[in-house]
Amino acid sequence: MTTYISLNHGSGGRASQQLISKMFLKYFNNEYLNQLTDSAIIESEKSHFAFTTDGYVVEPIFFPGGNIGKLAVCGTVNDLAVTGAIPKFLSTSFIIEEGFSMDDLEKIVATMSHEARQTGVSIVTGDTKVVPKGKCDKIFISTAGIGILPETYRWIASGRKVKIGDKLIINGTVGDHSIAILSARESLQFESSIISDCAPLNHLIQQALDICPDIAFMRDVTRGGLATVVNELAEMTGLGIMLHENSIPVNENTMGICELFGFDPLYLANEGKVLMVVPSEKATEVVNCLKKNEYGKQAAIIGEVVEQHPSKVVLETITGGKRLLEMPTGVLLPRIC
Amino acid sequence: MTTYISLNHGSGGRASQQLISKMFLKYFNNEYLNQLTDSAIIESEKSHFAFTTDGYVVEPIFFPGGNIGKLAVCGTVNDLAVTGAIPKFLSTSFIIEEGFSMDDLEKIVATMSHEARQTGVSIVTGDTKVVPKGKCDKIFISTAGIGILPETYRWIASGRKVKIGDKLIINGTVGDHSIAILSARESLQFESSIISDCAPLNHLIQQALDICPDIAFMRDVTRGGLATVVNELAEMTGLGIMLHENSIPVNENTMGICELFGFDPLYLANEGKVLMVVPSEKATEVVNCLKKNEYGKQAAIIGEVVEQHPSKVVLETITGGKRLLEMPTGVLLPRIC
Repeated sequence: MTTYISLNHGSGGRASQQLISKMFLKYFNNEYLNQLTDSAIIESEKSHFAFTTDGYVVEPIFFPGGNIGKLAVCGTVNDLAVTGAIPKFLSTSFIIEEGFSMDDLEKIVATMSHEARQTGVSIVTGDTKVVPKGKCDKIFISTAGIGILPETYRWIASGRKVKIGDKLIINGTVGDHSIAILSARESLQFESSIISDCAPLNHLIQQALDICPDIAFMRDVTRGGLATVVNELAEMTGLGIMLHENSIPVNENTMGICELFGFDPLYLANEGKVLMVVPSEKATEVVNCLKKNEYGKQAAIIGEVVEQHPSKVVLETITGGKRLLEMPTGVLLPRIC
Repeated sequence: MTTYISLNHGSGGRASQQLISKMFLKYFNNEYLNQLTDSAIIESEKSHFAFTTDGYVVEPIFFPGGNIGKLAVCGTVNDLAVTGAIPKFLSTSFIIEEGFSMDDLEKIVATMSHEARQTGVSIVTGDTKVVPKGKCDKIFISTAGIGILPETYRWIASGRKVKIGDKLIINGTVGDHSIAILSARESLQFESSIISDCAPLNHLIQQALDICPDIAFMRDVTRGGLATVVNELAEMTGLGIMLHENSIPVNENTMGICELFGFDPLYLANEGKVLMVVPSEKATEVVNCLKKNEYGKQAAIIGEVVEQHPSKVVLETITGGKRLLEMPTGVLLPRIC
């Protein structure tokens, strides 16, 4: 490993993976953590529960479509929901810079309260630390969450139910969160109408599970983008994944900005997107179900699990060519969440 | 409330309380959070569990007797243990400054691993964010924890079992953590032999509960010091507390530095101290039990619950006088934990 921490170690891509495997797993090694799902699945005496945490350092803290508080609640709720768990309890740890505006804190806290109500979770415990001016940038929030996991969905997060022929589904356009953040940064001289997709997905996921309890795998598509999640799926299952570029929903304005800056939307962050892997015969039914939910209107089948190229992701491009879709190696945009 | 966040809002004293009651409770209001114990007590279908979180921003990150990682694990374990729960699972959220030394990270992570093993908890989930250089100070860690709470101890954290005549016990000297941190700060031109008391207390607490399941109340004595915890107890129960200054263990070197700087050790932070409230007839037995544990060698009875001055704490001083011991209003030392 390198001698110093770089921004890449926080990117969610290859360097992050190395930090996890060569540092955290080396020392924290245990059967729960080793599963490397975003939520740990824990058996309690009579039921299972899911337990997760995330730190939020987004800059700017207010952006089109949300703020750091909305991200913190939705992100943790989504991490729990993709395991099949019903999110129940949240903790919040605030690290605040001396001199931070009390009004801004109230806006953030009010948003968290609103999102918690909307999703049905309770924020049950918390902590606040204040550091002297200049020792952190405005406000960082770490949330942890607990969800109750029905036995039926015990293995969704593990990927072990995924099989050849299964379809990949996403609930809408990719890349909007990154572009919304980018456009909100003062240093960048462009404006866009793009709004972050930041949203709580637990109800949408529950609706999909209700009509299709056989969903084989789910993961929220955040830092590192769709390319990262799909690569993780390929590595985790040892199976090949074929993605069809022309089926992947991308907002027209997002695409325009991507072309301008040379970004690939498949590597951009999202905060309201879930990748589902569903048995082929149920795929259309699940897409139709997602489309009825406000956060799934542009849901689409975007690929399938294939026998070829095990552990690799291949993208069939718009022009009909095929190329390997690799895991990102570095950070595209720091402090995106 | 004030317009801007001040260091006082992170002190654990009066300003922190106001931030909690006027901001967080206002918005996050629910039956679990409203109990205002460090850990939320949650009923699951067949058992209770405790859920807590804390952020760690200590400066310097390495200090005599520990480092930020040891603090993070011990702090969360202790928050769970004082509810009567058996700490089981921890999450960690790292926020790291770009350029941070990988060696230092490894030292911190190795310490966390060691402390987790010693206490019997598993670190089961985590997250890492990296922010550009200058946007945070080296490393912040937020840990959350879950513990299983036996029905017998269901009400310890609430204080409702406390009654007039009960004795207050502490497991050793107060103030050492603050002095150890202070002496490690480069800007301060003094050296001391004081080592932080940072320690996991779950085994010590379990031993005390085994011989005295009637322990009426426990709380770890951290930011804000003994004066804060005892005031919280008085307010929570509506009962009066009498403390005897000459019974409160203070390390001789710590006292020397307190006199030099004008500190009161009762307001200094600890990271390995627990206040216990115990029925009078069991007090000596509990103290003797604590003394057998490496973290309780200087355990002592330091006061009692009294009928007089309801909701107030009175200190009987070394010279025999009596004075009101108030909640601290501001921050004594920022970034003490």
